Amino acid sequence: MLKNDQLDAWDRENFFHPSTHLAQHARGESPNRIIKTASGCHIEDRDGNRLLDAFAGLYCVNVGYGRAEIADAIAEQARELAYYHSYVGHGTEASITLAKMILDRAPANMSKVYFGLGGSDANETNIKLVWYMNNILGRPEKKKIISRWRGYHGSGLMTGSLTGLELFHKKFDLPLAQVIHTDAPYYFRRDDLSQTEEQFTAQCAASLEALIEREGADTIAAFIGEPVLGTGGIVPPPAGYWAAIQAVLKKHDILLIADEVVTGFGRLGTMFGSDHYGIEADIITIAKGLTSAYAPLSGSIVSDKVWNVLEQGTDENGPIGHGWTYSAHPIGAAAGVANLRLIDDLNLVDNARDTGAYLNAAMRDALSDHPHVGEVRGEGLLCAVEFVKDRDTRAFFDAADKIGPQIAAALLDRDKVIARAMPQGNILGFAPPFCLTRDEADSVVAATARAVNTVLG
Amino acid sequence: MLKNDQLDAWDRENFFHPSTHLAQHARGESPNRIIKTASGCHIEDRDGNRLLDAFAGLYCVNVGYGRAEIADAIAEQARELAYYHSYVGHGTEASITLAKMILDRAPANMSKVYFGLGGSDANETNIKLVWYMNNILGRPEKKKIISRWRGYHGSGLMTGSLTGLELFHKKFDLPLAQVIHTDAPYYFRRDDLSQTEEQFTAQCAASLEALIEREGADTIAAFIGEPVLGTGGIVPPPAGYWAAIQAVLKKHDILLIADEVVTGFGRLGTMFGSDHYGIEADIITIAKGLTSAYAPLSGSIVSDKVWNVLEQGTDENGPIGHGWTYSAHPIGAAAGVANLRLIDDLNLVDNARDTGAYLNAAMRDALSDHPHVGEVRGEGLLCAVEFVKDRDTRAFFDAADKIGPQIAAALLDRDKVIARAMPQGNILGFAPPFCLTRDEADSVVAATARAVNTVLG
Repeated sequence: MLKNDQLDAWDRENFFHPSTHLAQHARGESPNRIIKTASGCHIEDRDGNRLLDAFAGLYCVNVGYGRAEIADAIAEQARELAYYHSYVGHGTEASITLAKMILDRAPANMSKVYFGLGGSDANETNIKLVWYMNNILGRPEKKKIISRWRGYHGSGLMTGSLTGLELFHKKFDLPLAQVIHTDAPYYFRRDDLSQTEEQFTAQCAASLEALIEREGADTIAAFIGEPVLGTGGIVPPPAGYWAAIQAVLKKHDILLIADEVVTGFGRLGTMFGSDHYGIEADIITIAKGLTSAYAPLSGSIVSDKVWNVLEQGTDENGPIGHGWTYSAHPIGAAAGVANLRLIDDLNLVDNARDTGAYLNAAMRDALSDHPHVGEVRGEGLLCAVEFVKDRDTRAFFDAADKIGPQIAAALLDRDKVIARAMPQGNILGFAPPFCLTRDEADSVVAATARAVNTVLG
Repeated sequence: MLKNDQLDAWDRENFFHPSTHLAQHARGESPNRIIKTASGCHIEDRDGNRLLDAFAGLYCVNVGYGRAEIADAIAEQARELAYYHSYVGHGTEASITLAKMILDRAPANMSKVYFGLGGSDANETNIKLVWYMNNILGRPEKKKIISRWRGYHGSGLMTGSLTGLELFHKKFDLPLAQVIHTDAPYYFRRDDLSQTEEQFTAQCAASLEALIEREGADTIAAFIGEPVLGTGGIVPPPAGYWAAIQAVLKKHDILLIADEVVTGFGRLGTMFGSDHYGIEADIITIAKGLTSAYAPLSGSIVSDKVWNVLEQGTDENGPIGHGWTYSAHPIGAAAGVANLRLIDDLNLVDNARDTGAYLNAAMRDALSDHPHVGEVRGEGLLCAVEFVKDRDTRAFFDAADKIGPQIAAALLDRDKVIARAMPQGNILGFAPPFCLTRDEADSVVAATARAVNTVLG
């Protein structure tokens, strides 16, 4: 990139990028990349580099880039009515239609959808609703939220507290006191290597129950979890996990929030991760896949059980004191309607299932025997490769070794494939668009094998 | 509205509206309104009602509805690149250009802009940055945030705590402990009616200083305030307020966050409210006017002083652990660029100043002498009328009288003009688009006078 380039200079002088080394970026010590256009699974930067995006942005461009159907819906909505608010019973055809389409696809016990903008603010809404609900039910002490180490639920103050990753806590005084964490459902990283998956699951459930009893069930409002751990390492749950956890929650009258920001609308090869694992949630968080990121939109789908208490609350207290100016923004709603139609029309959920299975099998074939590959795991169109110093003892690399980031960089440099080095471990993650072809899956796997060999021999 | 209408039924069965009486809405006891299209200062619902929107949505559609220039920019961006993330130094021409345009317009001491989605999440970012900053500076105890009663800074858990209005606290267990409130700068509601504005300002400053000394300045990180109180009643500050407050903050080394979500980009007839009142903020919150709501986008503009510490923080700790998937969303950025250009091209800031002065003068002429009008106040294109039971004693109506909501309803019913009954008082608020004409201003004033007479005689 030219150093005398105006856009480059403007970037470094004015733009505060998220999750970036701010000082290096401002001093021009780290590269920037200015994206120009994109189509299918490929993005293109203004220097003409064409990259295969095997992470779909931030696992969000589920239908793939450059979909004219969604762009046209956005354009039409922008011309007809770019904005009106949805407070006090206001709506648009797009927002009402999308609410209906979401409920048609959601588990049967779901009742209504509140629209937000991103996953973080949707989880913020969820906590507010849970607290409100327990106040209406006359149990004001039942307020703590249990989350899991390595869960990802946002990067706000309370939602970053739910997130169980060091990077999001350190120097930010998080987690806040209202949030407590239980074990990560991460079988590969179990302490006792002799445990079976079933034994590990039993331990997770017992550990959760012990936490609840220690804190007092009457102080705990809800448990939040992703059907498959996402940013914490792309980790499908151990066998029987969700059944065991739900039994504990039910016993102690604790609500279950399923954070389906990554898994909602098809990524696991089913419409929701809740369908996939038999999760009966009280609230479901949705975002990324709702619009395939073509416009910001998230949602909190609340069950009949929750909604009934919310109705009681407004009958007793008047209008609910919660709202964002951009709740149910027409542009996002129009994008959502077009996106969900496209997923149906192109059978993209089935494709996520089938190509996902193909990608995971191919990755396993190519890498499982590598002496530094500890595990290849995945579900639907999620896949991860975890690297270890020693397979037999499952000795991990040091964080300072940065094996994951090195392999991601090698993959990008040589084969122009984007994967993501997941935080807190040496883990390479894949979450491609649902339109990924088998040829593209083969390219991703072959390139990954080359990158692994480049870095680890 | 027909009861057998499909969209109406879908709405009530599926859509959880913000700030709504949920039970009445679901039972069909309160009207919904489905907006179809809009142009200039007018919106149109699907039943053919054409309404003059004197509140610009939620004081956000500043350039007016139906601007083809912004719709076209959104459409073009949606076709070219609807999404890519801005993590780790990534960007788009639109997001970088917008960052530059914002800094060109912001006060001289501002350095960088972090992009969010709405005002609430921008203030969430601000608190995270302030806490991070004081950790880097080695003063981990300096963390509390002072906000003002009647301030509005969002509706999340921490941002709803900053908000100083009962509706947003009640039944939600807010405010959280990290937030403390000081006096509302609301001269009309002063306790001691004999005070001059200057005396009242001195009292606000003294009260703030007493709070700081009581809590200990070394426990207080920042003060947040809107240049003009918005949702808390549309209240311009008393004479000398910002100078007096800033002197106290400076003395105690407390950062100042100017929440310019409502006032940013022209509503007061100056580009920022900070320019208008001589506020030298450390962080400025922007949202609504940044895109005129055509797409969700907000921002935290940080000063050199803040940025330098953030750079130090990433040099010491690596990449900053903060980001939203939709930070700097390309659609929002494209809308922002087109919107700021339009504001310049059409001289809309000047129009906000001139038509605002005209509207406020006309409202004062029409209503100041009414026996139940306590005050007509405003600044730029913000205007409010506060109703009282008795002018001479300044006796307020009871909340249960709902005079504000009744007048807003009368205004809508008869003359199809939208104004907003502000919470926690009987106050009618106006914040029209900047393209308001003098004829439209005259219509708004005449209709308001009729509505006031209808309700109050």
